[in-house]
Amino acid sequence: MTDVWAVVTNAPRGGVRYDHVSVEPPDDADLILKPLYTGICGTDRGIVSGSLPFSYNPRGYNFLVLGHESVCTVVESKNERFVKGDIVVPVVRRPGGCVNCRIGRPDNCSDGDKHEAGITGLHGFMRTEFAEKSEFVVPVKNRTIGRLAVLTEPLKNVVKAFEVFEIISKRSVYHKQDSTLTGKTCCVIGTGAEAFLYGLVAKSLGFNVILTNRHPVTDYKTKMLESFDLEFINYSEDFDRSFSSGIDLLIDTSGDPGTILKFTKRLNYNGIAILFGTNGRAKPSTITGIDIDYIVERNITLAGSVDAAKVHYYRALDYLEEWSFTIPEIGNMITGEYDPNNVKIFTQKGPGEIKSIIRWGNAP
Amino acid sequence: MTDVWAVVTNAPRGGVRYDHVSVEPPDDADLILKPLYTGICGTDRGIVSGSLPFSYNPRGYNFLVLGHESVCTVVESKNERFVKGDIVVPVVRRPGGCVNCRIGRPDNCSDGDKHEAGITGLHGFMRTEFAEKSEFVVPVKNRTIGRLAVLTEPLKNVVKAFEVFEIISKRSVYHKQDSTLTGKTCCVIGTGAEAFLYGLVAKSLGFNVILTNRHPVTDYKTKMLESFDLEFINYSEDFDRSFSSGIDLLIDTSGDPGTILKFTKRLNYNGIAILFGTNGRAKPSTITGIDIDYIVERNITLAGSVDAAKVHYYRALDYLEEWSFTIPEIGNMITGEYDPNNVKIFTQKGPGEIKSIIRWGNAP
Amino acid sequence: MTDVWAVVTNAPRGGVRYDHVSVEPPDDADLILKPLYTGICGTDRGIVSGSLPFSYNPRGYNFLVLGHESVCTVVESKNERFVKGDIVVPVVRRPGGCVNCRIGRPDNCSDGDKHEAGITGLHGFMRTEFAEKSEFVVPVKNRTIGRLAVLTEPLKNVVKAFEVFEIISKRSVYHKQDSTLTGKTCCVIGTGAEAFLYGLVAKSLGFNVILTNRHPVTDYKTKMLESFDLEFINYSEDFDRSFSSGIDLLIDTSGDPGTILKFTKRLNYNGIAILFGTNGRAKPSTITGIDIDYIVERNITLAGSVDAAKVHYYRALDYLEEWSFTIPEIGNMITGEYDPNNVKIFTQKGPGEIKSIIRWGNAP
Amino acid sequence: MTDVWAVVTNAPRGGVRYDHVSVEPPDDADLILKPLYTGICGTDRGIVSGSLPFSYNPRGYNFLVLGHESVCTVVESKNERFVKGDIVVPVVRRPGGCVNCRIGRPDNCSDGDKHEAGITGLHGFMRTEFAEKSEFVVPVKNRTIGRLAVLTEPLKNVVKAFEVFEIISKRSVYHKQDSTLTGKTCCVIGTGAEAFLYGLVAKSLGFNVILTNRHPVTDYKTKMLESFDLEFINYSEDFDRSFSSGIDLLIDTSGDPGTILKFTKRLNYNGIAILFGTNGRAKPSTITGIDIDYIVERNITLAGSVDAAKVHYYRALDYLEEWSFTIPEIGNMITGEYDPNNVKIFTQKGPGEIKSIIRWGNAP
Repeated sequence: MTDVWAVVTNAPRGGVRYDHVSVEPPDDADLILKPLYTGICGTDRGIVSGSLPFSYNPRGYNFLVLGHESVCTVVESKNERFVKGDIVVPVVRRPGGCVNCRIGRPDNCSDGDKHEAGITGLHGFMRTEFAEKSEFVVPVKNRTIGRLAVLTEPLKNVVKAFEVFEIISKRSVYHKQDSTLTGKTCCVIGTGAEAFLYGLVAKSLGFNVILTNRHPVTDYKTKMLESFDLEFINYSEDFDRSFSSGIDLLIDTSGDPGTILKFTKRLNYNGIAILFGTNGRAKPSTITGIDIDYIVERNITLAGSVDAAKVHYYRALDYLEEWSFTIPEIGNMITGEYDPNNVKIFTQKGPGEIKSIIRWGNAP
Repeated sequence: MTDVWAVVTNAPRGGVRYDHVSVEPPDDADLILKPLYTGICGTDRGIVSGSLPFSYNPRGYNFLVLGHESVCTVVESKNERFVKGDIVVPVVRRPGGCVNCRIGRPDNCSDGDKHEAGITGLHGFMRTEFAEKSEFVVPVKNRTIGRLAVLTEPLKNVVKAFEVFEIISKRSVYHKQDSTLTGKTCCVIGTGAEAFLYGLVAKSLGFNVILTNRHPVTDYKTKMLESFDLEFINYSEDFDRSFSSGIDLLIDTSGDPGTILKFTKRLNYNGIAILFGTNGRAKPSTITGIDIDYIVERNITLAGSVDAAKVHYYRALDYLEEWSFTIPEIGNMITGEYDPNNVKIFTQKGPGEIKSIIRWGNAP
Repeated sequence: MTDVWAVVTNAPRGGVRYDHVSVEPPDDADLILKPLYTGICGTDRGIVSGSLPFSYNPRGYNFLVLGHESVCTVVESKNERFVKGDIVVPVVRRPGGCVNCRIGRPDNCSDGDKHEAGITGLHGFMRTEFAEKSEFVVPVKNRTIGRLAVLTEPLKNVVKAFEVFEIISKRSVYHKQDSTLTGKTCCVIGTGAEAFLYGLVAKSLGFNVILTNRHPVTDYKTKMLESFDLEFINYSEDFDRSFSSGIDLLIDTSGDPGTILKFTKRLNYNGIAILFGTNGRAKPSTITGIDIDYIVERNITLAGSVDAAKVHYYRALDYLEEWSFTIPEIGNMITGEYDPNNVKIFTQKGPGEIKSIIRWGNAP
Repeated sequence: MTDVWAVVTNAPRGGVRYDHVSVEPPDDADLILKPLYTGICGTDRGIVSGSLPFSYNPRGYNFLVLGHESVCTVVESKNERFVKGDIVVPVVRRPGGCVNCRIGRPDNCSDGDKHEAGITGLHGFMRTEFAEKSEFVVPVKNRTIGRLAVLTEPLKNVVKAFEVFEIISKRSVYHKQDSTLTGKTCCVIGTGAEAFLYGLVAKSLGFNVILTNRHPVTDYKTKMLESFDLEFINYSEDFDRSFSSGIDLLIDTSGDPGTILKFTKRLNYNGIAILFGTNGRAKPSTITGIDIDYIVERNITLAGSVDAAKVHYYRALDYLEEWSFTIPEIGNMITGEYDPNNVKIFTQKGPGEIKSIIRWGNAP
């Protein structure tokens, strides 16, 4: 048993405390990791508030260590591919025995028999130290990324979602007459961290990108949108005119059915909607035969997309490295750094928050 | 101008009559065709009842000849690939100038600039004779199919929908551990002609197939389901138990949003729903955050699918030829044959109708 | 140990005898099968002649039971999905532990760690009886196919090769402007059993199909080609003129490098060659920079394809069932039926042979 | 007619001179461009030496302006998307009327009816000024790339080749058990400019990359390989040991059949070879039945890949921008800058050449 300080909850009941706990290291762990930074997202807060009933403690524990977004340093290694001091990102989801899990794609698990660190039956990364199997970590080769690497986890979801998009777009000739996506519109519902990351990747593929929300955004975000070359529309003011030329790729980070339907009906022929956000408490909406007809007659596809595989973590790190040079303002996405014992960040957002992170011990 | 007897409407206002009309043959038509049989479907009845606002008369006409399901005989040919007496099926949708239309895929038209015979701006096939361009007809090589070929048009939609399914299923390892679909469940909502055809194709791919409806089916249909080796479930009686092991492929032919949502929430991980049916007057339903969450967390895809390309007509004819031998009861899908002037079939279904057809003149 | 009569060899040294041998049944076999028919192919003869060095006896045996093409009847079943009297086709290749094997695709084995019944380290099907695991058999649902089912094994290779073709053809818009393959040419090198089967499947996809060989074919084959609606060209007489309009899909069943290169240089832009035949003793040929240039400048793809997965056995059986009705002459492909003890069929082809088979005991 | 100074040849006879010539601007050109830099590659030298018989002068001219690799500045624009001073890369291949050309993929032209600037029937970019249609130029958004943008054209070929790789790799589970390519080997035959670019892209996808040649490389190249984190093997010294663990992706830039075959037989199961290099004068080699057998039994694919579409130019520019930061040594690939009138660079390579370029007038 390893004794550590950790941010813990009691899933699915909720609550949060920074506490001294004992955790059994996994069999055949060959690395000891110390977190440098861990990110906080809606899922963490959902668990803490007790509103995610699918969350549960690891077997044999009456608590769950939180944290699935992290960047760590190796403090001990029994594996030849890693040495002390290496920077790594541990992966969240761990495979079961289904056909997808057995080829490294637990993100596409066919039977639900998988675990997610810090969420479902597996302790997370918000602890002073933990043992890990090297097959479940991704190396951060370029140390200059620094704390940006804490965005790997949210960004890997975006990378996987675009893999889904690429597959689905094969239904038809999706690109323009010149083979590119130039002139096609991607609309991202939401203005949180994931929305910004979706926007950046869509931009890099050639889309004209619009982030949208029902409220105006802060000056801080406005400035960041500018530095990212992304457009913003407050759709409660300007829906009809703004989306008059249609949407080719819709990405939802809100989980709100009414908003999703509203924008789905702006999709062009062969349009694709990626459903990523979840919000079990969203206000119900009405869906009509006209809505279904719209989807059918235009060959529209709506695709749920969750989690990502190791290959997407690698690609996410590539993006972060690239953006650290080409969009240095990317660092502004991290809007607040907190101490591990400052657990009230789990119950209220930081001011002007895009991404709040916890800084652990000797983070560089 | 060619003078013909035809079943005409005034789109989108509606109405139906068997009348003597004059129609301008298309430029560069190289075939003269006579229908042998034309099928009647919900779209025809929707136009007649005035409930399909997207329908419209061809430019310069105050009427629209109905009919998009047909099998015809060649009475004159200026094209070397066809001779008098050949049996052919004309295609419904005609291409515009978009990237999909220009490669023979007007079914995936990107800009809506296409026409559909008997529906949108182009005269249909319910007339004693018409001129046609040979590029828009598909030969029925095996004459023994006979009137079964009138099912080509509805079946080609099914073939295209399964093309969509195949593409989307590449998102993950969709098949079972033994590489087949044996043991996977396809549920088809509806028990009309399209539902039967979807069931047969799904069966041929290895799915366990269930057709479902909120009411029991007639003895006639029950017998046909048996001969097709398809299961039926009256879901208003038996929903929870019947679908307890989940659905892997859901096909909707109802267009009813409440039913679609009800069954979507029985989809397994990586499940796919093909939305095919449309019903603008369907009862609205409620969609919640929990519904969206279900789709996201399971990587579920919902795909609208409409129409089909020439390649799918060919494949549909292959299926019909095959089934004419292996499932001779397939002929029972045609439940009524009517004279062209018997236009009340457009306002009320035939008794026990699965597919009603019109027999033209000298049909063999 | 089970004592049986079997056709055995000593791999890789070769030789053949019909002998009484003892074989250990596999652990957890749940079926006892009796062959009805087993087919003989070039691989069997290669093993017998000692020219296939990769062949080897099962561990612990100094002999190898031959036979990988077969149709069997169930004589005992401990598995609920099978009952005595069922007709089945056992699969040839058995999975190891690689990423492809573990999802039911040992045909795409990544590391060579697999076994093939009757070829590499696993006893084949040419014995009076054997125990088998039900996961390795495919049911023949339609008993009326009869002995045609012995063609399932060679045909399943064709089905897999066309899966490869479909994937590769996604490199470009491969189809014609009308979305079909009508007017595209598939050339099959060879006139043996596999060549005929490739021709039939290519035909069903819409290709204009030409089988070709350097010699004229027998009257028997000429008649069969006619009944299959396949063209034949004796390319030693008529190469330049015959292939002047180019080849879109080339399938080689000869394994002869000179012939492959000769025809590759008739491939059109985006042309695809499936390499299926093998002949380690083929006459070497010369390959030039011009040959490579031809392939590069035209985006040509050459793809080796071997074996097939369970899903392809199912599809092969579908084709056989269909053809048994639509091309009843398909039965003429079986040109000779022999007794198991008549082992000289392994060292010399039957007269006018297309496919020679062995009839076991009480075959119906 | 526009009078310009240009590097011209007389295709396909060859020769080269810097001359004053008159060229008719294309109809509906809306941009006037001035080259900043133009790159010289093997194709240019092949045309000059008269060894590329497929090259030809534009209709109505007795000369061909050379040059297909270039970066230009806009000096006049009638198109709203471009203004004077913009930096752009014009595309090489111009579409004809085939199904691929008409969707912006002339790189996959189905009928050969296309033109290539500076190569086949269309004047190239080595002239002081030329008129161009804006649909055939790609904007260089990030001006800081500078002369690196002259690598866009060779790099776009690499990007397209990896598109081909991605499609073909769908034949099987190509990735490792953890979903990544980490641990897979890409071997690139050649050490010229294209070989380096292939190596860099393969590296970014996760491959372990080896460049190989039959001779040792210069110290300059050795240093560059190090800065690019690419391995080099002199295969004439060290073939057997070096490739003992097999190759998963083989890329040929040599066009030499003997070398291609030698390395093909080191491909692992499901291995893929991209054939990119061409050399019509390469020494012929021998291909045997064993070679064919090797390809068949391992499901190996060999794919010719030529040219690229506009979408690949965009992606190439993304790579160059990224590498300008992450691998600043990328600039060392440009080993020599020459004046336009210094035409002897077309008949002899610059010392230690990787990529020689011509600097035009007021290049920044």
